[in-house]
Amino acid sequence: MRVMRYEDDGGVVRYGEDIGDGRARRLGGSPLAGAIEVEGTEDRVKRVLMPIQPSNIFCIGLNYREHAAETGAELPEHPVVFMKPTSAATDPGVAIRLPASQMRGPEVDYECELAVVIGKAGRDIPEARALEHVLGYTCANDVSARRWQKQGGGGQWIRGKSFDTFCPLGPVLVTADEIADPQALNISTTLNGKVMQQHTTGDMIFSVATLIAFLSRDTTLLPGTVILTGTPQGVGMARKPPVFLADGDEVVVEIERIGKLVNPVVNA
Amino acid sequence: MRVMRYEDDGGVVRYGEDIGDGRARRLGGSPLAGAIEVEGTEDRVKRVLMPIQPSNIFCIGLNYREHAAETGAELPEHPVVFMKPTSAATDPGVAIRLPASQMRGPEVDYECELAVVIGKAGRDIPEARALEHVLGYTCANDVSARRWQKQGGGGQWIRGKSFDTFCPLGPVLVTADEIADPQALNISTTLNGKVMQQHTTGDMIFSVATLIAFLSRDTTLLPGTVILTGTPQGVGMARKPPVFLADGDEVVVEIERIGKLVNPVVNA
Repeated sequence: MRVMRYEDDGGVVRYGEDIGDGRARRLGGSPLAGAIEVEGTEDRVKRVLMPIQPSNIFCIGLNYREHAAETGAELPEHPVVFMKPTSAATDPGVAIRLPASQMRGPEVDYECELAVVIGKAGRDIPEARALEHVLGYTCANDVSARRWQKQGGGGQWIRGKSFDTFCPLGPVLVTADEIADPQALNISTTLNGKVMQQHTTGDMIFSVATLIAFLSRDTTLLPGTVILTGTPQGVGMARKPPVFLADGDEVVVEIERIGKLVNPVVNA
Repeated sequence: MRVMRYEDDGGVVRYGEDIGDGRARRLGGSPLAGAIEVEGTEDRVKRVLMPIQPSNIFCIGLNYREHAAETGAELPEHPVVFMKPTSAATDPGVAIRLPASQMRGPEVDYECELAVVIGKAGRDIPEARALEHVLGYTCANDVSARRWQKQGGGGQWIRGKSFDTFCPLGPVLVTADEIADPQALNISTTLNGKVMQQHTTGDMIFSVATLIAFLSRDTTLLPGTVILTGTPQGVGMARKPPVFLADGDEVVVEIERIGKLVNPVVNA
């Protein structure tokens, strides 16, 4: 099912099945609370919201072979884990804000990522059973302020990854049963109509199942945990000359079988 | 006020004013929801819980001058920011679990820290008004698996900082009005009765107010955000020979005017 979170004409926030043409069929309760049941009422979707409000956001760095190569990094021995605060999560269509507090000019970059949403809590999840804990998948943009990420944080990436609007999610959550192999999806970023990243999730160094097993070692993955699984080659900072987001831009992250996550860009 | 979160004799979780002798006077609602009002009923406290369930946990590395010196690090130009997932938050008295998945043997360390709890949301908070956003203070132990922190995460500390039980908080939250100067508190760690860290929050490189201003730049600090403000010198890894936590240990973090956060240690 394509699960949408949205505001209806009356301003009420609901979960529904995306049935196209700007309409949704209401679901009973939250998909995180258990079985997904179609209630039946059809709504006009006034505004599409991020399909899940994350409990925690884990991110994986350097998880595509060709992206690791373009940054000059060696292939990691273990997944490189960082986080974003839940305050960074952003709805589709809402503007990515270029922080006013950027160090010496904006160097804000896009990163298209497959986002995994955990539905069933677990700890020490074996890799072979990892996908049973996945509620579904959505698109994410791991927006990154490169100067802060690389120079401002004493080597820790969080400050550069955690500004408001730095984690667009959406447009829908596609339930796990509809994506048999999360390692066989085309993924891309388009900036102002120009394709900047275009690759396949098959290039991941650590698969979705491996990441869930790794992150859950001695660690409870709560329902609503969102895992951003890394980005392929083509990020702005690795281009010659570098390309960074600017006021008035439009960024589109697209993943096969999920959809397009579109966000404009504005100066804060 | 000394705000306690606890389980009463009937197993109900409540907020109350700590009135000593294992008793609490009930508060109306959650202290995060607004004004703190004493409802009046007295309860016997069956079990003390972490005083707040964090919405996000930010941590600051290398924020005491003498600790930066003992690790051989230069003084940071900006606060070094990392995070813990909310799943790591742990109640007073609950055992810190030494992960079974440790790389080549346990190297789990203690770090006593002053934890700041944000009560009033804010973004771009000026330093001069930063303390108005503080609901109160509690003790934290920034438990750290050193091998993962230093070698396993591609330079990112999160994996080594995020195992279950790696963020004990408590025993109470002391509201901001009772702590006029958060930079003048004695802070210590005692391991099996031996003092391992003993210093003052006055040695912080970046004060509580500076940290709130810094973290809130273009970033909304949500109510329930917990900021761990760094640890003083005396951590286990910097000792000769190093001292790491072991099954059967007891760690006590104590901060003047707040109290003692006691956690045993067990193998997972």
